[in-house]
Amino acid sequence: MTSAKTTRRTVLTGVAAAAAFGLTTGTAHAETNGPRIGILLYDGFSLLDPTGPAEVLSRLPGATVTMIAEHRGPVRTDTRDVALLAERSMAEVHRLDVLLVPGAGNRGTVAAMENRVLLDWIRRIHRHTTWTTSVCTGSLILGAAGLLRDRATTYWASADYLEKTFGVRYVPERYVQVGKVVTAAGVSAGIDLALYLASLLAGEETARGIQLAVEYDPRPPFDSGDAATASPELKALALKLLADSQE
Amino acid sequence: MTSAKTTRRTVLTGVAAAAAFGLTTGTAHAETNGPRIGILLYDGFSLLDPTGPAEVLSRLPGATVTMIAEHRGPVRTDTRDVALLAERSMAEVHRLDVLLVPGAGNRGTVAAMENRVLLDWIRRIHRHTTWTTSVCTGSLILGAAGLLRDRATTYWASADYLEKTFGVRYVPERYVQVGKVVTAAGVSAGIDLALYLASLLAGEETARGIQLAVEYDPRPPFDSGDAATASPELKALALKLLADSQE
Repeated sequence: MTSAKTTRRTVLTGVAAAAAFGLTTGTAHAETNGPRIGILLYDGFSLLDPTGPAEVLSRLPGATVTMIAEHRGPVRTDTRDVALLAERSMAEVHRLDVLLVPGAGNRGTVAAMENRVLLDWIRRIHRHTTWTTSVCTGSLILGAAGLLRDRATTYWASADYLEKTFGVRYVPERYVQVGKVVTAAGVSAGIDLALYLASLLAGEETARGIQLAVEYDPRPPFDSGDAATASPELKALALKLLADSQE
Repeated sequence: MTSAKTTRRTVLTGVAAAAAFGLTTGTAHAETNGPRIGILLYDGFSLLDPTGPAEVLSRLPGATVTMIAEHRGPVRTDTRDVALLAERSMAEVHRLDVLLVPGAGNRGTVAAMENRVLLDWIRRIHRHTTWTTSVCTGSLILGAAGLLRDRATTYWASADYLEKTFGVRYVPERYVQVGKVVTAAGVSAGIDLALYLASLLAGEETARGIQLAVEYDPRPPFDSGDAATASPELKALALKLLADSQE
């Protein structure tokens, strides 16, 4: 229980190994030249949409990851079980290197698409970003802000809506880049997107290091994550599980 | 902006399709017979460790997912950038069907392993759980609570520590089940674990539905997530990126 004991113990072997390979040990959080990454939260977001990318992007040298919402404070997920803390209000944030807009269930997505304060802020931030990004139905919110061109991806069950509403072609990839806008597919695709962003921001070797840092060597016990090969019954079940968990 | 407009719009096609396949539309959150899932937060946890499993497990029919900590309120991640809200204090929670203990950086893990209040609570809850589970270095905390037997997995850089400290064999799998204790490998492995738990709790078809619901069809842009094939240089880089992002 003593702090002396705490500081002596290390449960991660090889933490000091970096020096052996000539990697200088930085003081990343004191640096101010790393990317400023902002993640926009709004009521009813899906938990993994912001947190998967945040886990990956927070490992970028010197990066800061800030959760932002219309107002500071707790913001609840679509199931209402869990809340993430928004550290800054939109009014406090004027510039970001990376903006990420997560997705939500139907209620949260529609409310965000109809929130003019939120859409105006997204457009204002987008003017100066290096990358403007989304996960899941977050691309519909970028669409509502007028930021989609040509093609994009989104949650599989929102593909028709994306095409009909914004006149952009749905591409069933994990992430789709058009200029500085990068959209990701549903929920867990944010992790794949974030590793790609990491390579754009800090190079492929760093992105590979982060992938190992989060031990991202996925081996799902089932092979049922691809809507292109899923049966109509499984799609209906997936949407029912989502709907029932949300209200 | 009117609520009438909001309720009319749907951005997810096929939400009503469930009925066509004879799936009854439940009112899951009103049910009280779903699994009670508790996730233990403590200062310095790694963000994806609890949030990946929470995203998956919250879709289980009737499930409740509760973030629990020594005290209610915000609990900060290892990078200190992000905070999740603990909805219940440990003193308020006496029974869970599933306990999940996430991992952390060195500081957070060691502090948790030396926190007797926390270890006592884990042991007390474990007596009645259906499944007691961990992600990443969370297995070291289960070890400190005396709950590991025979074999387990953990974060790749903690494998030696696990074996030497608790006398259990490290197994380099995404998750390892011994009795009712299921340990997962690092960070992102919690998603694979959660899908496996979903199949144990609600059957394989529901687990497959959840996998599609979170579009978990991972396609990382690089193949660098497996420590067994990573170079010593990449391992050193991964640990340096982690260390620098934490202090």
